[in-house]
Amino acid sequence: MDSVLISEVGPRDGLQSVQATMPLTHKQAWLTALHASGLREIEVGSFVPARLLPQLADTAELVRHALTLPGLTVMALVPNRRGAQAAFEAGVHKVTLPVSASEAHSLANVRKTCAEMVEEVRAVLALRNSQAPHVKVEAGVSTAFGCTLQGEVPEAHVLHLAQALAEAGVDDIGLSDTTGMAHPAAIRRLVTGLRQAVGEKAGAAHLHNTRGLGLANCLAAYEVGVRTFDSSQAGLGGCPYAPGASGNVVTEDLVYMFESMGVHTGVNLVRLIEARAALRLGLPGEPLYGMTPEAGLPAHWRGAASAANLQPSS
Amino acid sequence: MDSVLISEVGPRDGLQSVQATMPLTHKQAWLTALHASGLREIEVGSFVPARLLPQLADTAELVRHALTLPGLTVMALVPNRRGAQAAFEAGVHKVTLPVSASEAHSLANVRKTCAEMVEEVRAVLALRNSQAPHVKVEAGVSTAFGCTLQGEVPEAHVLHLAQALAEAGVDDIGLSDTTGMAHPAAIRRLVTGLRQAVGEKAGAAHLHNTRGLGLANCLAAYEVGVRTFDSSQAGLGGCPYAPGASGNVVTEDLVYMFESMGVHTGVNLVRLIEARAALRLGLPGEPLYGMTPEAGLPAHWRGAASAANLQPSS
Repeated sequence: MDSVLISEVGPRDGLQSVQATMPLTHKQAWLTALHASGLREIEVGSFVPARLLPQLADTAELVRHALTLPGLTVMALVPNRRGAQAAFEAGVHKVTLPVSASEAHSLANVRKTCAEMVEEVRAVLALRNSQAPHVKVEAGVSTAFGCTLQGEVPEAHVLHLAQALAEAGVDDIGLSDTTGMAHPAAIRRLVTGLRQAVGEKAGAAHLHNTRGLGLANCLAAYEVGVRTFDSSQAGLGGCPYAPGASGNVVTEDLVYMFESMGVHTGVNLVRLIEARAALRLGLPGEPLYGMTPEAGLPAHWRGAASAANLQPSS
Repeated sequence: MDSVLISEVGPRDGLQSVQATMPLTHKQAWLTALHASGLREIEVGSFVPARLLPQLADTAELVRHALTLPGLTVMALVPNRRGAQAAFEAGVHKVTLPVSASEAHSLANVRKTCAEMVEEVRAVLALRNSQAPHVKVEAGVSTAFGCTLQGEVPEAHVLHLAQALAEAGVDDIGLSDTTGMAHPAAIRRLVTGLRQAVGEKAGAAHLHNTRGLGLANCLAAYEVGVRTFDSSQAGLGGCPYAPGASGNVVTEDLVYMFESMGVHTGVNLVRLIEARAALRLGLPGEPLYGMTPEAGLPAHWRGAASAANLQPSS
C-alpha cells in the first residue's frame, strides 16, 4: 500500500494567523491530541521576534513539550540565522525556511531579495553544520504558483531558485501555493520540473484551499510523486483573503481523501476529529473549517482510520 | 484546447432541496443570468407531482422560459412515464431518469426495485420513440459509489445496471455520487469500467462535495475521460447531511478549476458569479456556498473568463 506523510502546520501557520493567542497549556494539549491521532510531523511554531508574532512567543517551550511525544518530528519555521540559532538551541528536529520566488513578496515578507535569501539559507546551513548537524533544513519556496503582489511567477525562476537552494545544501525543497493560485495543471508541471531540477530533494507540497482547489491540487501533486503534504487542522491559517475562504488545506479532509483511496496516512481520523476539541477550548469562537468533520464519516467507510479500527490511545 | 460541458443542476437539484419556494419570476431571472454566463445545459426542474415537490410545481412554465434562451439544452428530471409524458409535452430537449444502483435506495426513493426501474426506463423510451423522437434520454445511476442505506454498492452491480440501461436504448448513462462517498480511486475504476461496458454512452459525472472531495473527484473523472459535469450554482442542493457541508459541487469553483487548467468551459466566471444575485433575491437568507466567489478571482488570473475578457451580454 502506498503511503504519504501529513505534515501538520496548524500550530504554526494556523496560530500565527488568528488574532487571539492560544495559551501554552492549550497548545500543549492540542499537540498531544494531534500526536495521539497518529500525526508524525508537526510544525509547532516559529522562531521570530515576539513583537512580530506574539501568538508564537512560546515556541521554545512548546518545542520542549513536543519533544516528549514519541516518534514525532518536531519542526519549526525560521526566517533567518537568528531564528535558526534559537531553534537549534530548543532542540527541534527540522527547520523550514520560507524562500519566496517572487521578488516583490520576498521584499515585503522578509525585506530581502530572493538572492539575499539564498545567502541567508547558506548561513543557516553553515550554522547547522557546525552546531546541530543532525537537524534537517527544508526550504519552502513560497509564491511558487503566482503572487498577488507581482502577478505571474515564471516557472523557470522557481526552478532556478530551487536549484540554487539544492546546491547550497538544503535537505529538501517544498513548493508553497502561498496565494492560493495553483491549479492541477500547474502543479503537475512545476512538481515534475522540480524533480528534474533537484531530484530526491523535491519535498513537500504546501497547498491552500483559497478557491476550493486544495484537495484537487493535492491529488495532482500525489499523482506526480509528492508524498509529503502540509495541511492544517480545521483549515486554520494561511488565509489572506475573505472570511469563510479557508486558507490551508484541511488536514481532516486530506486524510479522508487519502485513506478513502487506500493511501496510508498513519492518521486515525476519528481521533483527529476529536483533537478539534482542544482548538475549541484554546481558541473559543474561532471558526473551524472542514467538510469531513461536519458531515461525519460514512457509516460503512473502510478507511484505515474508521471507527471500527479505533485503537486505544497509546 | 480541451473542453468540458458544465451541466447546471441548481434549478432542479438545488431548489428541490430548500424549504422555501423560489417565485417563478425569480427562477426565470436566474435561468436568464445562468444562460448569460455561457452555461449551455441546465436542468430546469422535475416533472413530479406538486404535492411531493411543491418547490418545482412550475417546471412546465419554467421550461417555456428556458426554451427562449438561445443555444440552451433544456433538461428536466423525470422519475417515470407520467413525468416523461409531461416533459415531452412541455418541450424539453432532454430528460434524465434517476436509476438507483442500491436496491434499498431505489425502494426508498421511487418504491421500485432496480429491475422495475429499468422497465420504467424502457417504457419512457417507447414513449419517447413514438411521441418525441428528438428528445434525448439520460439515465443517471444514483448511489453509484455507495449508499447510506445499504452500505457498499458493488461496482459489478453498477456496471451490470448500466449495461441493461444501454441495451434498453438510453442515449447516455451518468454516474451519481448521491451520498458523497466517492473518492478519486473509485471514480477512476468505475468510470473506466463504465466506458468498457457501454462505450460512448458513458455520460456525465454528478459528484457531491459532502466531505470536500468534490473537485478532486471531478479532476479524477476528467482524467479518465469524463467531459460532462453536473454542478450547482452556490452548491445549492444535494445535501442530505450537515448544514455547512454543501452537497453538490459548486459550479463557480468547478469552472474556476477547469479554466485555470486551460480546459474550456464556455462559461464567463465573472458573469456566473453575478448570477448569484438572482439567488439572493429569489431565496433570501439561503446560504450560498463557493470558495471562488468568496475569495474573488486572482488579479492576474488568465482564465478564459477573467474580467479582462468579459464580453457584453448577448
